[in-house]
Amino acid sequence: MKTLLVGRWQPFHKGHLELVKAEAGKGDVIIAICSANRSHSLTNLFTAGERYEMITGALDEGGVGAEIVTIPDTGNHALWVELVRRTCPKFERVVSGNEFVRYLFSERGFEVGEPKFFEKEKYNGTKIRKLMADGGNWKEMVPKGVAKVVERVGRDRLRLAQRDSFSKNE
Amino acid sequence: MKTLLVGRWQPFHKGHLELVKAEAGKGDVIIAICSANRSHSLTNLFTAGERYEMITGALDEGGVGAEIVTIPDTGNHALWVELVRRTCPKFERVVSGNEFVRYLFSERGFEVGEPKFFEKEKYNGTKIRKLMADGGNWKEMVPKGVAKVVERVGRDRLRLAQRDSFSKNE
Amino acid sequence: MKTLLVGRWQPFHKGHLELVKAEAGKGDVIIAICSANRSHSLTNLFTAGERYEMITGALDEGGVGAEIVTIPDTGNHALWVELVRRTCPKFERVVSGNEFVRYLFSERGFEVGEPKFFEKEKYNGTKIRKLMADGGNWKEMVPKGVAKVVERVGRDRLRLAQRDSFSKNE
Amino acid sequence: MKTLLVGRWQPFHKGHLELVKAEAGKGDVIIAICSANRSHSLTNLFTAGERYEMITGALDEGGVGAEIVTIPDTGNHALWVELVRRTCPKFERVVSGNEFVRYLFSERGFEVGEPKFFEKEKYNGTKIRKLMADGGNWKEMVPKGVAKVVERVGRDRLRLAQRDSFSKNE
Amino acid sequence: MKTLLVGRWQPFHKGHLELVKAEAGKGDVIIAICSANRSHSLTNLFTAGERYEMITGALDEGGVGAEIVTIPDTGNHALWVELVRRTCPKFERVVSGNEFVRYLFSERGFEVGEPKFFEKEKYNGTKIRKLMADGGNWKEMVPKGVAKVVERVGRDRLRLAQRDSFSKNE
Amino acid sequence: MKTLLVGRWQPFHKGHLELVKAEAGKGDVIIAICSANRSHSLTNLFTAGERYEMITGALDEGGVGAEIVTIPDTGNHALWVELVRRTCPKFERVVSGNEFVRYLFSERGFEVGEPKFFEKEKYNGTKIRKLMADGGNWKEMVPKGVAKVVERVGRDRLRLAQRDSFSKNE
Repeated sequence: MKTLLVGRWQPFHKGHLELVKAEAGKGDVIIAICSANRSHSLTNLFTAGERYEMITGALDEGGVGAEIVTIPDTGNHALWVELVRRTCPKFERVVSGNEFVRYLFSERGFEVGEPKFFEKEKYNGTKIRKLMADGGNWKEMVPKGVAKVVERVGRDRLRLAQRDSFSKNE
Repeated sequence: MKTLLVGRWQPFHKGHLELVKAEAGKGDVIIAICSANRSHSLTNLFTAGERYEMITGALDEGGVGAEIVTIPDTGNHALWVELVRRTCPKFERVVSGNEFVRYLFSERGFEVGEPKFFEKEKYNGTKIRKLMADGGNWKEMVPKGVAKVVERVGRDRLRLAQRDSFSKNE
Repeated sequence: MKTLLVGRWQPFHKGHLELVKAEAGKGDVIIAICSANRSHSLTNLFTAGERYEMITGALDEGGVGAEIVTIPDTGNHALWVELVRRTCPKFERVVSGNEFVRYLFSERGFEVGEPKFFEKEKYNGTKIRKLMADGGNWKEMVPKGVAKVVERVGRDRLRLAQRDSFSKNE
Repeated sequence: MKTLLVGRWQPFHKGHLELVKAEAGKGDVIIAICSANRSHSLTNLFTAGERYEMITGALDEGGVGAEIVTIPDTGNHALWVELVRRTCPKFERVVSGNEFVRYLFSERGFEVGEPKFFEKEKYNGTKIRKLMADGGNWKEMVPKGVAKVVERVGRDRLRLAQRDSFSKNE
Repeated sequence: MKTLLVGRWQPFHKGHLELVKAEAGKGDVIIAICSANRSHSLTNLFTAGERYEMITGALDEGGVGAEIVTIPDTGNHALWVELVRRTCPKFERVVSGNEFVRYLFSERGFEVGEPKFFEKEKYNGTKIRKLMADGGNWKEMVPKGVAKVVERVGRDRLRLAQRDSFSKNE
Repeated sequence: MKTLLVGRWQPFHKGHLELVKAEAGKGDVIIAICSANRSHSLTNLFTAGERYEMITGALDEGGVGAEIVTIPDTGNHALWVELVRRTCPKFERVVSGNEFVRYLFSERGFEVGEPKFFEKEKYNGTKIRKLMADGGNWKEMVPKGVAKVVERVGRDRLRLAQRDSFSKNE
């Protein structure tokens, strides 16, 4: 059985890596990078390519393998599951922390599950992006391979995440 | 004279049916299902196809006829009236409860009118969607043909309408 | 059982009307107007709205009823069936003269069938469009309700169908 | 050196004209009309064409020249700079009041600058649109060539800018 | 009266410049750069920005002024005139060498005219692009301002215009 | 140095696998699956997901690793390289058998190279698709992991590749 992990991974953090490890212990795993066309905004800070590179770095570090697929938004919820199904290798089960995503896939007959997040309070995308914007210690929240990409992307991208001008362009 | 009734019909309720009856007494009627590409969200709960089926069911029940056309959003207000005009049979008059819609059509030279809604306080889309989300008595608000489609779509769709995870995906 | 008739209906001719009559004798019918976003070209001469109006006129004349839905092209064959399914009332069977369309629907589990065209050699879209372009006797090929719309659209649209400048803009 | 001035110019006001004059004193100027596909909404009141006409009127009045280019939104921040670059004559420097815009261009290696706005408190788009909506004295805020276009567009467009029905369609 | 000149200007040649001069003698002129989203192909060799720059160079040289607007393709002929109308300053008359374009505008009530091309056999886009591909003497066909842009774009772009790999990507 | 291999891989054959092996011997490799939104047509037979699965199967078999990214068409050649750059992990060099693709990347400053195809006459996409359509021996042309996916997709998809109805929908 192959499992699709659905998320935006903004950024991919240590909690995500634990999730992949747990799922990879049960079978094959595909990681879907959603909202692939979104970047440079308060909640979608990194491009699809930057996130892809973060994830391969993190997986190498964690000694775990997965297929990675990028999925842009469709502007039509009723077509989105079909786009995912047609862009990914064949999968049977979907894991997502988002109840809405789980509903969309279950409506099309997929088996769905909730992720068991590792230290959910600590490893949390919104919280990590806030640390990034404020110059806080975000580095200990993410695998080293992720930190390397974030540092190449640079301070200016992170700093903008706290600005009005930025959120208005969300 | 043919009149276009513009709405999202989320869902089509008894007030809508009274409106169609009143307009059908004056001439031919087209019902435009707008935001046809939107569904599975807090304010756009049903797909275009589900709404089409609700409306034909309701019209049969009400013993009234109308042409039905689905219109997706364009992302460009300045082109929207032209899209409607090119997708529908020829019409001369437009009725909508939305002042913005009436302005867009009047700017292009169409005669526009406001609907006289039947028991407006009682039959109201937002209120009915809230009843659906909360498990309230939405059934008496809609024609039987509409209730049949809603029940086939199922409880999970309605329940999600009250969740944060859902509204965030609006 | 509800049957979806898939076509472009450029224009809707007497052979099409016979097909609808035959299918309507077996159950409910939906007519899908495909390539709804295409018009003003050699093979897609009429807009979705013009075709919708032609079809309602023809059905009235033939004393037969059907639901009519407009479907734009998607630019992605793998998503097209899902778009049709989400835009139309629920259907179980698909009839199309195009083998490719039948394959796309059968791949998604729909029952598919070939239409039995009435006097196929005589009533044929390409042939009728050629008559239109050349000023030939296209009128006897189409129901009166169709001819009425074609005449309102006007001679210039038809005449262009034979020009190079036109086909280059296909 | 050619400088690109990036804005939405909703509407183009006297402060904008002073900015163009100041920049035109240093070299060639291109004015990019952004969100060209947006109009008829609370913050994007005028179409690209209306804004183009306002700007040429204002430039004539101010005795200053500039190239004018319209740029639609892309739905993908990571592609937007490339779209601007490919749609405009070659430029080397970008001036924008929006920090986010400056960051996007600097990330691609362009020299960027902040505009020195003339009487910033007085000449301000949000404030002028509020005057327009409320029937206040917006005319003294804009060049005569701009006022002429606004008056042709008409009172109904401006009046709607204060309505709920309007902002909901933003 | 303001006249819209509709074309792709691939590239803008001396015949085009004579046309602008002739039209500018009668009133104001807008030059619409169509298929603005097309470039790097056999028949659409240059980007919108490159063509914009060619045209301003040529107009300077010819001592004639015009407003310039870029218009992307819409994928829907029935909406295209509305897009042009909403993107350009107000115009009343349309001049195009393409019969199809003239029909689309006349259908919407615009006055249309055919251009009187200067030495039509000599100054011709297809012929000039062939000279460019073959390393022939294209330079004498275009104004100096155009040649300057073509030379900056470079030999590789022109050379590809004769290749199969290129035309297949048209 | 990371190299991007650009192709459509319709299907991924033994010649492609040899290419990946050769490039993987020099450094890291990304395989871009282009025209990801195209499928079910004469030259684009398989979906992005089917091609992704073919490639992972083939790479496992060949004992070689690569990152895999799907890239949809953009409808704008001038933006395509930027889309690829923003969707993929960082790369410095591009290898493609298509001269047009190499030109687009070199125009943006990337190092480009031509692939050295293994037995080019024998292993060729067009030829293999013809074998598939005609029921010929395509299996020996592709890695076993590819054949497995093709067989799951089924005979009907392959058979259609020789039909007129199919090519017309290209």
